[in-house]
Amino acid sequence: DFLSALETDIKPAFGSNEEVLDSYIGTGIIIWDESVQNVLNAGELCTKTLKSPNCDGIFTMLLEGPPNSGTTALAAHMCKNSGFPFVKICSPDEMVGFTETAKCLAIKKIFDDAYKSELSCLLIDDLEGLMEYTPVGPRFSNAVLQVLRVMLKKNPPKKRKLLTICTTSRASMLEEVGLFPVFRVVTRVNNISTGKQLVHVLLNVNDTFSQDDLGRIEKEVKGKRLWIGIKQLLAICSILGQIERHERARFFLEHLEEKGFIRDDLS
Amino acid sequence: DFLSALETDIKPAFGSNEEVLDSYIGTGIIIWDESVQNVLNAGELCTKTLKSPNCDGIFTMLLEGPPNSGTTALAAHMCKNSGFPFVKICSPDEMVGFTETAKCLAIKKIFDDAYKSELSCLLIDDLEGLMEYTPVGPRFSNAVLQVLRVMLKKNPPKKRKLLTICTTSRASMLEEVGLFPVFRVVTRVNNISTGKQLVHVLLNVNDTFSQDDLGRIEKEVKGKRLWIGIKQLLAICSILGQIERHERARFFLEHLEEKGFIRDDLS
Amino acid sequence: DFLSALETDIKPAFGSNEEVLDSYIGTGIIIWDESVQNVLNAGELCTKTLKSPNCDGIFTMLLEGPPNSGTTALAAHMCKNSGFPFVKICSPDEMVGFTETAKCLAIKKIFDDAYKSELSCLLIDDLEGLMEYTPVGPRFSNAVLQVLRVMLKKNPPKKRKLLTICTTSRASMLEEVGLFPVFRVVTRVNNISTGKQLVHVLLNVNDTFSQDDLGRIEKEVKGKRLWIGIKQLLAICSILGQIERHERARFFLEHLEEKGFIRDDLS
Amino acid sequence: DFLSALETDIKPAFGSNEEVLDSYIGTGIIIWDESVQNVLNAGELCTKTLKSPNCDGIFTMLLEGPPNSGTTALAAHMCKNSGFPFVKICSPDEMVGFTETAKCLAIKKIFDDAYKSELSCLLIDDLEGLMEYTPVGPRFSNAVLQVLRVMLKKNPPKKRKLLTICTTSRASMLEEVGLFPVFRVVTRVNNISTGKQLVHVLLNVNDTFSQDDLGRIEKEVKGKRLWIGIKQLLAICSILGQIERHERARFFLEHLEEKGFIRDDLS
Amino acid sequence: DFLSALETDIKPAFGSNEEVLDSYIGTGIIIWDESVQNVLNAGELCTKTLKSPNCDGIFTMLLEGPPNSGTTALAAHMCKNSGFPFVKICSPDEMVGFTETAKCLAIKKIFDDAYKSELSCLLIDDLEGLMEYTPVGPRFSNAVLQVLRVMLKKNPPKKRKLLTICTTSRASMLEEVGLFPVFRVVTRVNNISTGKQLVHVLLNVNDTFSQDDLGRIEKEVKGKRLWIGIKQLLAICSILGQIERHERARFFLEHLEEKGFIRDDLS
Amino acid sequence: DFLSALETDIKPAFGSNEEVLDSYIGTGIIIWDESVQNVLNAGELCTKTLKSPNCDGIFTMLLEGPPNSGTTALAAHMCKNSGFPFVKICSPDEMVGFTETAKCLAIKKIFDDAYKSELSCLLIDDLEGLMEYTPVGPRFSNAVLQVLRVMLKKNPPKKRKLLTICTTSRASMLEEVGLFPVFRVVTRVNNISTGKQLVHVLLNVNDTFSQDDLGRIEKEVKGKRLWIGIKQLLAICSILGQIERHERARFFLEHLEEKGFIRDDLS
Ligand SMILES: Nc1ncnc2c1ncn2[C@@H]1O[C@H](COP(=O)(O)OP(=O)(O)OP(=O)(O)O)[C@@H](O)[C@H]1O
Ligand SMILES: Nc1ncnc2c1ncn2[C@@H]1O[C@H](COP(=O)(O)OP(=O)(O)OP(=O)(O)O)[C@@H](O)[C@H]1O
Ligand SMILES: Nc1ncnc2c1ncn2[C@@H]1O[C@H](COP(=O)(O)OP(=O)(O)OP(=O)(O)O)[C@@H](O)[C@H]1O
Ligand SMILES: Nc1ncnc2c1ncn2[C@@H]1O[C@H](COP(=O)(O)OP(=O)(O)OP(=O)(O)O)[C@@H](O)[C@H]1O
Ligand SMILES: Nc1ncnc2c1ncn2[C@@H]1O[C@H](COP(=O)(O)OP(=O)(O)OP(=O)(O)O)[C@@H](O)[C@H]1O
Ligand SMILES: Nc1ncnc2c1ncn2[C@@H]1O[C@H](COP(=O)(O)OP(=O)(O)OP(=O)(O)O)[C@@H](O)[C@H]1O
Ligand SMILES: [Mg+2]
Ligand SMILES: [Mg+2]
Ligand SMILES: [Mg+2]
Ligand SMILES: [Mg+2]
Ligand SMILES: [Mg+2]
Ligand SMILES: [Mg+2]
Repeated sequence: DFLSALETDIKPAFGSNEEVLDSYIGTGIIIWDESVQNVLNAGELCTKTLKSPNCDGIFTMLLEGPPNSGTTALAAHMCKNSGFPFVKICSPDEMVGFTETAKCLAIKKIFDDAYKSELSCLLIDDLEGLMEYTPVGPRFSNAVLQVLRVMLKKNPPKKRKLLTICTTSRASMLEEVGLFPVFRVVTRVNNISTGKQLVHVLLNVNDTFSQDDLGRIEKEVKGKRLWIGIKQLLAICSILGQIERHERARFFLEHLEEKGFIRDDLS
Repeated sequence: DFLSALETDIKPAFGSNEEVLDSYIGTGIIIWDESVQNVLNAGELCTKTLKSPNCDGIFTMLLEGPPNSGTTALAAHMCKNSGFPFVKICSPDEMVGFTETAKCLAIKKIFDDAYKSELSCLLIDDLEGLMEYTPVGPRFSNAVLQVLRVMLKKNPPKKRKLLTICTTSRASMLEEVGLFPVFRVVTRVNNISTGKQLVHVLLNVNDTFSQDDLGRIEKEVKGKRLWIGIKQLLAICSILGQIERHERARFFLEHLEEKGFIRDDLS
Repeated sequence: DFLSALETDIKPAFGSNEEVLDSYIGTGIIIWDESVQNVLNAGELCTKTLKSPNCDGIFTMLLEGPPNSGTTALAAHMCKNSGFPFVKICSPDEMVGFTETAKCLAIKKIFDDAYKSELSCLLIDDLEGLMEYTPVGPRFSNAVLQVLRVMLKKNPPKKRKLLTICTTSRASMLEEVGLFPVFRVVTRVNNISTGKQLVHVLLNVNDTFSQDDLGRIEKEVKGKRLWIGIKQLLAICSILGQIERHERARFFLEHLEEKGFIRDDLS
Repeated sequence: DFLSALETDIKPAFGSNEEVLDSYIGTGIIIWDESVQNVLNAGELCTKTLKSPNCDGIFTMLLEGPPNSGTTALAAHMCKNSGFPFVKICSPDEMVGFTETAKCLAIKKIFDDAYKSELSCLLIDDLEGLMEYTPVGPRFSNAVLQVLRVMLKKNPPKKRKLLTICTTSRASMLEEVGLFPVFRVVTRVNNISTGKQLVHVLLNVNDTFSQDDLGRIEKEVKGKRLWIGIKQLLAICSILGQIERHERARFFLEHLEEKGFIRDDLS
Repeated sequence: DFLSALETDIKPAFGSNEEVLDSYIGTGIIIWDESVQNVLNAGELCTKTLKSPNCDGIFTMLLEGPPNSGTTALAAHMCKNSGFPFVKICSPDEMVGFTETAKCLAIKKIFDDAYKSELSCLLIDDLEGLMEYTPVGPRFSNAVLQVLRVMLKKNPPKKRKLLTICTTSRASMLEEVGLFPVFRVVTRVNNISTGKQLVHVLLNVNDTFSQDDLGRIEKEVKGKRLWIGIKQLLAICSILGQIERHERARFFLEHLEEKGFIRDDLS
Repeated sequence: DFLSALETDIKPAFGSNEEVLDSYIGTGIIIWDESVQNVLNAGELCTKTLKSPNCDGIFTMLLEGPPNSGTTALAAHMCKNSGFPFVKICSPDEMVGFTETAKCLAIKKIFDDAYKSELSCLLIDDLEGLMEYTPVGPRFSNAVLQVLRVMLKKNPPKKRKLLTICTTSRASMLEEVGLFPVFRVVTRVNNISTGKQLVHVLLNVNDTFSQDDLGRIEKEVKGKRLWIGIKQLLAICSILGQIERHERARFFLEHLEEKGFIRDDLS
């Protein structure tokens, strides 16, 4: 029937859960700033709390940051490091074409599955995507919002422990729709905003820029407003391979400015 | 058929009614303030009124307070203490994925079941959740609202007594949609807002803070605005076990301030 | 089929039409003011008009008053006193869970049934409940509104007489949606607003207050704004039985003030 | 099938087309003012135009006036007097409970039936009722509006003549939704607004008032704003039979003032 | 199946395509002004362009003018004169009662049929009617709009030529919904607005007015604002046959003024 | 079943993928300005980046420009030049009449098909058309938007490379609905706005104007605001063949001015 059909449907098409986690983590986490480490620490603290013997029930954490800032990769990293026997991902890209009701039941099912294990960890990625949120209107699936609200509040059966790590790039929307009170810990993820952070990332992308180029880039950025997500930055870096080595720095800086990632105004 | 299917569906998956009540009560009620006792007293008064021989029909009570303030646990406590032969809970987490019509029929059925007993008590938890209310729009199921309005007004058959205890964190919404006139008694539940109340709770969480720490905490809070629900506070306390004993007070206070539960502004 | 199913469905579960009328009338009408008598007189006049030989067709009356003011009981009283051979009630509590179309057909059927008798009286209770009206939006079933508008305008077959008595607590809404022109007579029902009226009711609730208490209550109320529906007032009285006799007056007055039924401001 | 089912469904339950026309005309037309005669004349002119040999196609007329002003009775009178071999009524009270699509098809069918006769007259009563119009929102069936717009514009087959007489109490709405350009002639029906008109009507209601009373009534009304529809006025007159003869004039005037049909303000 | 059913359904009930075209053209085009000729010329230019050997693909023309201004008759005239082997009409009056999806498929089918002929001409009449547009809201079928937008942009298969002539009385709406960029040529149709134009038309309606009357009418209109569509004007003329010859001019002018087609204000 | 049905349905009716690409490219790209070359270069850079061995995953590009500016032809040109083994087009004109869900599944399927090839290129044409966007409301299919957002963010399976080239004439709308962050490179396409660019195009339309005419046209345009899309311009040129050679320049300039493509105002 429908529910057993669901079970198959939401199983990712290309591999085990571990592999899916890895696909969300991508090329790995670059600790380009102290704030990145803080986020990882918060995840570890929540994990240890729930593991401790005198604690049970549900514990809900939210990672929030701008689009492309890396919230998904960080959350997947936490899930992987939790060492919980049951780890599952709830992501909109596994529910494309579902009706609203099917989506609600699929979400409920993920929780019900988690209840079966004593120690479970759920990554609920892209809350606004799950709710099909659009700021124009605004529009979103109230049914999905309500299921999330109810399931994130609901106590698991006795002696069950459930850690849920959610991500969003629309924290203010969650606030407005009244979903914030269900989160026990809310942690902020940031975009790259200083030349030092930028260079830290570029150094990790192997052999793209010379030491001179890096110096020039850091100098150029100084005194301007920089604001770029790690995902977008890594994508731009991948283009650079097609550019002559001696033109890369100029191309890179021009591109960032043209597309608005660097702005002159400091006011 | 559908209705008999409903009967099974809304039966909680993990145990008897008593157990469900207990799961809503959680770790028990801490009387952290006189106001908590007043709420419990109001519940007792309503119970006794309906039990008295010259009174019958429906009597409807509303517990309203901010999210995480403990309304559900208090209402469940009242139901348990009522000693009524028939006690049932109507909660959105038992209706996840229901269509609007199924939800309406399920609610009606709970009342119809209650009518069968001479003396019944219904806990209707999270009215805004049942209505799938979201302040953005605002959106809510008008059908569910109407069923609640009609069933909370309707007289049970002759010689039947029905106590309904409802909870909400959106009293102003209930006012706006015109549901207030159906409540015979409305009682307010509060958040923790003074250092004294805070310490009262912490004392009940066994062995987390030293006497010195408690003193320091109460002093720090003085002159600031404190506003935290009992549920959120107990969750934070559970993290403290992972923090070194001598760092707990600092961590605890910093966390409360960072997340906005303590604010400097008194204006 | 569906229509014959309707016939059974809308038959109240617990008894004959007479019994249903009685359940709406409740503990009986207290004539706590001249205005109550005027309402009853208006009903009698309409009844007599329709009964007179040179009058036929449909005659539509509206009782409008605030929630809990007793409109339903008064309308039911009029129906019972009409002595018409066919009396039927159309109330939202008999249509819970109906689809919009089912509701429309059920309403139409009640009229069609009435057309079969030469002299019929319909009580259409809680017009805004039938329309599932909510002031937020506002939302309501336009389909039900239209059916009511059409059926309340439509002439019955030749030589048929139909009295329809409608109730509402949302007269201004009916005005706005354009339903007012279908009513031939509109009559206002009021809340209790003077100490004298209040005491009149209390005297009818047997043996609750001493003569002294009643005097004290009337004095206390003087110069303040009192505004309470008869239904709410009778409910509060029912609690008083649980209060020590010598504390009742104080409890009663405090309760009225706390819940906002008595207010200081006269401006 | 559905369409043949329609054929039966929209046939009025209680008699022939003639009888239905009569039931809409009611107790007959009182020519209480020259303006009433003008309306009837306009109808006759349109009828004669279409009957003339060098004219064919569709000719559409609109009677518009406030609720209760008698538009339906006047339109029915015109249809009856047209002497057209095919006369049919399209009224919302014959489509209660129809889905939007069924309604559209039923309307289309009425036109298609009319096309079959060489000379047809359609009374399309209560346009806003057909569209289920409510000023709150506003709400209305756009589908029905569009069908009406299309059918009222559409030319019948060659050598067919079709007169459609429509009524409405929401002319301004028809203007706003863009339906006005389809009407070839628009005629206004009025409420009673002078003492002379009022007395003219009262004289036609046999034996209710003495000559003295009528004089007194006309005098009282002078200098005040009177505004009442013929249908409402006749209903009030029917109550008067229950009032003592010597009290009737006083009762009548008080009632008109109380219910707002007479107002003092002339500004 | 459904699509083959469509094929039959949208075939007009009363004759061949030619006949349908004729029914839209009506009593023929009166060239009451140079501007009428210009419109016809624009149509001829588009026809010739598409017929020329070095041109293929889709060419889309829009005739826009106020209601009753004759856009449909002019467009039908162009289609007839195009001499294209395939001519088809897409009009809302052939889609009454269709669901939105059926409408979309029917429109698509008309284009697909046209693609089969090497040289096709489509008359898409009353764009706002097809979209079920109402300015209140505004409401319209976005699905139909999108189908029109897509089909009017889409290139036919290689070596196919398609001329589409669309009409509308809501050009500003088409602009707002973003449909304008698909039209290669937009042509304006006007209402009659001068005495000279009016008389030109009246002269073509055989034998209604004497030379004197025409002179008087032209003089009366001078200095006033005249604004009337050809369709409405011809309808009024048809009534005149019922009026005594010597009264016609007076009746005609009074009627135009009363119904607002002539206005005094020139400001 | 439905999905296999889809497979057939979205296959274009008239030929292979190559042919479809050609039909979108039309009569070929005219490099009427340096900016046209820049757009083509950007496409080549993205193609080369994805082809390079150390790059995989999805790379998403957006071409945005006003209606008729040629975005579709340019994007189709890029796809053709990419030399990728798998090239597919996702365009609203292949989904006419699809339900919202069918559309979502069809889009998902196109991506899933692309995942099967190691190196794929998707042309997603007319994003606002796919979403059925209308600025009035605004209205659009949120479901389609969400599918696009999810699929454009989702990583293909390991070692798969996917280039998606999207086009739109509503960049600001994409910004508002939050779709911009999924694009790695955004490139602007322009309308023709100078006399020099205009003449460049006219020179490519063989033998329409004499050298003198071109000079005159360029001179006339100077100092005025010119704004016309390449598609609209080529359409006007096609009409010129029907105009006498010596009148073409005048006709051409008058037409551009009359239809608003040339304006006097420079402010
Ligand atoms: N410190 C970091 N934090 C997060 N991601 C990092 C970091 N360093 C490198 N990455 C890489 O950056 C990419 C971040 O992509 P990710 O999908 O997590 O971003 P996102 O914020 O979820 O984007 P979106 O807004 O599309 O949801 C991943 O491929 C990850 O491997
Ligand atoms: N005085 C108290 N009042 C209520 N709850 C208390 C009290 N003392 C301790 N608790 C505990 O606090 C928790 C309150 O959780 P509860 O679910 O009732 O909150 P809530 O206000 O209903 O939250 P929500 O806004 O999520 O509905 C329960 O676990 C309960 O055992
Ligand atoms: N004068 C009175 N008028 C009306 N009801 C009275 C009066 N005196 C006593 N009652 C009692 O008060 C109660 C009024 O309840 P009722 O349901 O009629 O109120 P209501 O205005 O219809 O309330 P609601 O707003 O919930 O529809 C009844 O039980 C009735 O017996
Ligand atoms: N001059 C008149 N014009 C119209 N109706 C008249 C006139 N004189 C008497 N009547 C009577 O008045 C009544 C008018 O009722 P009718 O249903 O036509 O009003 P209406 O304007 O259509 O009302 P509604 O707003 O409910 O549609 C009829 O019963 C008719 O017989
Ligand atoms: N110059 C003219 N242009 C258009 N129609 C004319 C002209 N002269 C005479 N006619 C006649 O006027 C009538 C115009 O009707 P038509 O249906 O074309 O108007 P329309 O603008 O399409 O109206 P609608 O707003 O209802 O769609 C036709 O019967 C046609 O024969
Ligand atoms: N430089 C150019 N850029 C784009 N198209 C060109 C260019 N030169 C010539 N063309 C031709 O112009 C036409 C542009 O049409 P195309 O459908 O691409 O426009 P579009 O912007 O997608 O229009 P729409 O707004 O309708 O989607 C094509 O036929 C193409 O062959
Ligand atoms: Mg993410
Ligand atoms: Mg709760
Ligand atoms: Mg009531
Ligand atoms: Mg009427
Ligand atoms: Mg037309
Ligand atoms: Mg395009």
